[in-house]
Amino acid sequence: MKVTRRELLAGAAGAVAMGATAGAQTPTDPSKVRGKPPRATGQRAAAEKVQRIVRSGSASGTPHEGLMGIITPSDLHFERHHGGVPEIDPSTYSLLIHGLVERPTIFTLADLKRFPSHSQIHFLECSGNLGRTAGPETTPGQLAGLTSTSEWTGVRLSTLLKEVGVRPTAKWLLAEGADAAVLSRSVPIEKALDDAIVAYGQNGEALRPEQGYPVRLFLPGWEGNASVKWLRRIDVSNRPFMTREETSKYTEPFANGTARMFSFRMDARSLITYPAFPNTLQKGWVEIKGIAWTGAGKIRRVDISTNGGRTWVPAQLQEPVLSLAHTRFRHLWEFTGREAVIMSRAVDESGYVQPTRAELLKLRGPGTTGYHLNPITGWVVRADGTVVYKEEA
Amino acid sequence: MKVTRRELLAGAAGAVAMGATAGAQTPTDPSKVRGKPPRATGQRAAAEKVQRIVRSGSASGTPHEGLMGIITPSDLHFERHHGGVPEIDPSTYSLLIHGLVERPTIFTLADLKRFPSHSQIHFLECSGNLGRTAGPETTPGQLAGLTSTSEWTGVRLSTLLKEVGVRPTAKWLLAEGADAAVLSRSVPIEKALDDAIVAYGQNGEALRPEQGYPVRLFLPGWEGNASVKWLRRIDVSNRPFMTREETSKYTEPFANGTARMFSFRMDARSLITYPAFPNTLQKGWVEIKGIAWTGAGKIRRVDISTNGGRTWVPAQLQEPVLSLAHTRFRHLWEFTGREAVIMSRAVDESGYVQPTRAELLKLRGPGTTGYHLNPITGWVVRADGTVVYKEEA
Repeated sequence: MKVTRRELLAGAAGAVAMGATAGAQTPTDPSKVRGKPPRATGQRAAAEKVQRIVRSGSASGTPHEGLMGIITPSDLHFERHHGGVPEIDPSTYSLLIHGLVERPTIFTLADLKRFPSHSQIHFLECSGNLGRTAGPETTPGQLAGLTSTSEWTGVRLSTLLKEVGVRPTAKWLLAEGADAAVLSRSVPIEKALDDAIVAYGQNGEALRPEQGYPVRLFLPGWEGNASVKWLRRIDVSNRPFMTREETSKYTEPFANGTARMFSFRMDARSLITYPAFPNTLQKGWVEIKGIAWTGAGKIRRVDISTNGGRTWVPAQLQEPVLSLAHTRFRHLWEFTGREAVIMSRAVDESGYVQPTRAELLKLRGPGTTGYHLNPITGWVVRADGTVVYKEEA
Repeated sequence: MKVTRRELLAGAAGAVAMGATAGAQTPTDPSKVRGKPPRATGQRAAAEKVQRIVRSGSASGTPHEGLMGIITPSDLHFERHHGGVPEIDPSTYSLLIHGLVERPTIFTLADLKRFPSHSQIHFLECSGNLGRTAGPETTPGQLAGLTSTSEWTGVRLSTLLKEVGVRPTAKWLLAEGADAAVLSRSVPIEKALDDAIVAYGQNGEALRPEQGYPVRLFLPGWEGNASVKWLRRIDVSNRPFMTREETSKYTEPFANGTARMFSFRMDARSLITYPAFPNTLQKGWVEIKGIAWTGAGKIRRVDISTNGGRTWVPAQLQEPVLSLAHTRFRHLWEFTGREAVIMSRAVDESGYVQPTRAELLKLRGPGTTGYHLNPITGWVVRADGTVVYKEEA
């Protein structure tokens, strides 16, 4: 029996834990020790080690293998930046909107917060979210950690554009960040007037620095790069701006020699987060779990295969299924001790079906970039219960 | 112009910020400084000071005045405990289910996680959530901070009860905590078999210690006290156990001399979180914002009065409205510089209407306890724009 110093001091050294009455190994008994008082902010339990996966000097991913449900804790939301995370003083922050507008205006943070606000639970995914995998020993977070889901709050961009008076000739706008990369993207006016948010809130509180504090653009369902963080300027124009991040980057060459630019929308994808590397299964019933998402709206169905894609059955979806948000799927499967390849395939409300890697590479052709890759992926459950990533699922 | 030491070192002392071109006060320019690298876990921006409101040695509340949307960050979820927050080793944790069952069983945490899982976004409210107010200088979090909303994940209690084989004579069960108070409550078997969760997850990750780590009971829509934290034992019986927490406490005397016991369900309530003390308004349009919730399911409507309850108009509700979760409401109102009393009133899908304080006290009679008090509350916006709590709204 393990006895802590604190229990000795509390005179409870001989306490027998509840479980002991039923024959379990006797643990120390927390009910014999006065617990901790309230705290101004909570902390994780000491035994919980969940952390982001730092991929490079400019990116870290969400550790999906350690998460449940659909909400990503803000401090585990993925980050991706091109000039580091800037420190911005909210008291001097301002957003300039100019160009093809009647009233060029500078908004302070307080100004933005006076407008009607809007909150929605949405995923955000980097279009480069197919990690360089480490072969069989790749975790879900390494494979696809650059997607996360938060409740975003802000003012609709359409509200601000109404305030400044967008001219009829406006077709595009430039969104410019205040980071050292001055990351800049062109956004069609239709998206700006539809569901774009100038966001200052994330999961109930202020944005976190890595997600654009104090203010970012948020374009639901679109590649993360276009949702410009640390937003300082919007220039309304009649044409796209052809920035570095949409010409030399974030463009996909196709097999026929053409290239796709301004491919904003993220296509449907799914990811099994359990079982996965480095889990080891025991024989018996296993709940296959994961997340699916699509830039087209709602996930309609997630299919599961436990035989390498020969046959598929629909998983259960966590209700309510939210539009443009991670959707949790679950499927009970019996591991009998025979090797199995488990895979998931998302189908969205537009009818789009997540493609196999072969289908995707055939479309893209040789030399394709790593953007907007959403192949079906899978895991091999070996006969001994160990689980590894299957590169060519 | 303020120049930081870092900017001087970076040779960017003379940098002119973007905003300056439009005539704004010149801020330092973060785009001239390389930002911070990725971090394994994020932290709040230094300027953000949001914290729980520590009310006593056994409770802290959610600072609703600083929050947006419906999700409460886990480290700001309210806490209420009767023996402090215990430290429990998850590797030795166990849950015993015994009594009127065929197979008394001890479940480890790993055992619980092997069962089919279930996640839902739900509020949790302490039935003592009408704070001792400090008169006019009371904040929303002081007034009603003992309610929070998280996405909870766990195994349905019905699944575990099926596993152990509940006998037909079972009518109630005892849920017992492992804290120093050994907090214990009786729960009707109908709730246990309906939507009760044995929860190990909160907002995507493990429960936080103050919310019951590693495992708690969660009874959607019911008073928080019955959702026993640090759950170590469930004893299935044919009668309630008449524990201290349901006899001397958590019972409401009525005007006619009787008392109501086992009043589990939380009735509909709403809270304006902005404007509120200590805000000061400028004249012009103001978005009145707040949260509403009900143990009966979904909020159907939130009415707003800006004239002390004489007339009411419906607020906008954040969609989708989730069952048994905080619902964010918003209403645009013009503050003209005339004193106004603003109030909110929740109506739920059962047709229940949040009562006035007078209606509630008439029903309860003199000497009523502080449990299950959900009166309409309000704020006075004075002519000078200062806002104070109105005790007798």
